[in-house]
Amino acid sequence: MQLTQLILEGNRLSLSRLLTQVENDSPEGRAALVELFSHTGQAHLIGVTGAPGTGKSSLVNQLTLFYRKQQNKKVAIIAVDPSSPFTGGAVLGDRVRMRDLSGDDGVFIRSMASRGSVGGLAQTTASFTQVFDAAGYDIIIIETVGAGQSEVDIARLAHTTIVVEAPGLGDDIQAIKAGILEIADVLVINKADRPGVENTERALRTALGLAHPAKRVFRHHGQTISIDVPETDAKIWAPPIHKTIATDGTGIAELADSIAKHVAHLHQNGDWALRERARLGSELDAVLQEELMSQFLEKVQKEKYDEIVENVLQRNISPYEAVRMLLNGNLK
Amino acid sequence: MQLTQLILEGNRLSLSRLLTQVENDSPEGRAALVELFSHTGQAHLIGVTGAPGTGKSSLVNQLTLFYRKQQNKKVAIIAVDPSSPFTGGAVLGDRVRMRDLSGDDGVFIRSMASRGSVGGLAQTTASFTQVFDAAGYDIIIIETVGAGQSEVDIARLAHTTIVVEAPGLGDDIQAIKAGILEIADVLVINKADRPGVENTERALRTALGLAHPAKRVFRHHGQTISIDVPETDAKIWAPPIHKTIATDGTGIAELADSIAKHVAHLHQNGDWALRERARLGSELDAVLQEELMSQFLEKVQKEKYDEIVENVLQRNISPYEAVRMLLNGNLK
Repeated sequence: MQLTQLILEGNRLSLSRLLTQVENDSPEGRAALVELFSHTGQAHLIGVTGAPGTGKSSLVNQLTLFYRKQQNKKVAIIAVDPSSPFTGGAVLGDRVRMRDLSGDDGVFIRSMASRGSVGGLAQTTASFTQVFDAAGYDIIIIETVGAGQSEVDIARLAHTTIVVEAPGLGDDIQAIKAGILEIADVLVINKADRPGVENTERALRTALGLAHPAKRVFRHHGQTISIDVPETDAKIWAPPIHKTIATDGTGIAELADSIAKHVAHLHQNGDWALRERARLGSELDAVLQEELMSQFLEKVQKEKYDEIVENVLQRNISPYEAVRMLLNGNLK
Repeated sequence: MQLTQLILEGNRLSLSRLLTQVENDSPEGRAALVELFSHTGQAHLIGVTGAPGTGKSSLVNQLTLFYRKQQNKKVAIIAVDPSSPFTGGAVLGDRVRMRDLSGDDGVFIRSMASRGSVGGLAQTTASFTQVFDAAGYDIIIIETVGAGQSEVDIARLAHTTIVVEAPGLGDDIQAIKAGILEIADVLVINKADRPGVENTERALRTALGLAHPAKRVFRHHGQTISIDVPETDAKIWAPPIHKTIATDGTGIAELADSIAKHVAHLHQNGDWALRERARLGSELDAVLQEELMSQFLEKVQKEKYDEIVENVLQRNISPYEAVRMLLNGNLK
């Protein structure tokens, strides 16, 4: 039987195999993605991001257990660890995770350490969500470490983005980022049994006020468009702040409730479609960019490329001039 | 007088103006970069990265004061804050910084919050280093927040990368990343007067052992090449671990000494040239990719592009098929 057919029927081994092919960007992986694409568009993509030490993974575990036990939903977890460019830093996290969720056929966990560029990572994550979506997973959680731009880009893949904080982490002014808050649909203060939870909540509320959530961002014809929504607009989603203790499950049901409300909100005001458009538009651009580059590198002569690089190294020509020379010599 | 000429003569206002043009990717900015490029290649680029709360900014301040007072070197600081995609999160940090370093004409500080893609951020940072390099700054410090892939990419621009840790930050297994350590040339445990410094040092030494530093990575013809260096190779640089207290200057002179030794090491074993090649090769590829994409988008019909995106949204065709259609229709 065909690999894609097996995946549509729920075969876990085939699913695992395809994810590896997709990660390696193999021709089989690409072909399968094309075949599976028409089966996508059903899953709810949830991004979970936050600094190390906030207990993100425990929170994701608890949320997954909740969706399994209370709603019988199939859940896929993609744990992205972009800070580990060479070795598999995500592996340890997996082992901790497995204790809670192993043996449940309705849960699939896949870790991913960056092997290439950031663009590559976001693209692989996007492809993974498509595979899980086609394979019938209702909820796909994309968990990213940290608060860098790459994490923001990956979180943007999601319909609902959860930003996790914890009390007492980082005592300097950089601790709470307006930028990361702007992508948050739901905020969580995890480890809420720790001292300092009130301070964290106060800081979050202040930062939220500064973050101007009254904005809708989407992409169109390769451009990011940002629309200011009037403050009085009833359609605005005000990100709720939840306090949780992931280790004992406190606050998880309430968090799941907020997530469900956010999905309803997205459908009601048309943002679901906008986010789909932004997500698929970005993906299209990324594939296009990669394809243009690889087509170009196939056409360019290695000797000519090396000679031009050498001239840049000698500071004879700038990178911009080098590109002009490469393009003039090869695309005419 | 020409803008570039003014910059070569040390005019700060012109420098500031050009940085803004470069950040906005204006035609004037690009033209100036081309003109200035032949004046680059003198500066020592130092990357400083680490999680929020490690006291990176204070450390960079102290290091800058050291270079100013002890060695009379001109220092530029590029503070990159990729977690702030929309608003200027870097501004606050600047104000704190200014107290120590303001009024010194041998110091130039520039903050940068991400406005576009990660690629764009790394590219702007690369362009900034060229401007400062041409303007005669001996040391260019690129300070990045966090430990994501984008920070790793930006740190890779540097000749010498310093990774800053602090005791008691993050108590889970994600706290110390093998990936970020692999890019470290020098490690700093800042806030070394805090409890837990021995634990942090022990964890760092263990992680360093796992991180296989015996590897040299460079780029060639658009590809990343990694060479395993035999463990017995005398040319291997073992990243030293420094303990500092940035607030009172403890350990700063020793850190500066290690940085100087690293530069000497890079020149001796040929890694300086390899890193230059990797850095300029990456930059060339980024400019090339961007140029290919913008040339393509100019040629493609907006209606056709929108129609294809719509077909992807309707799940009629996958992003890969969409790209194939776009390329077939327009590049033949």
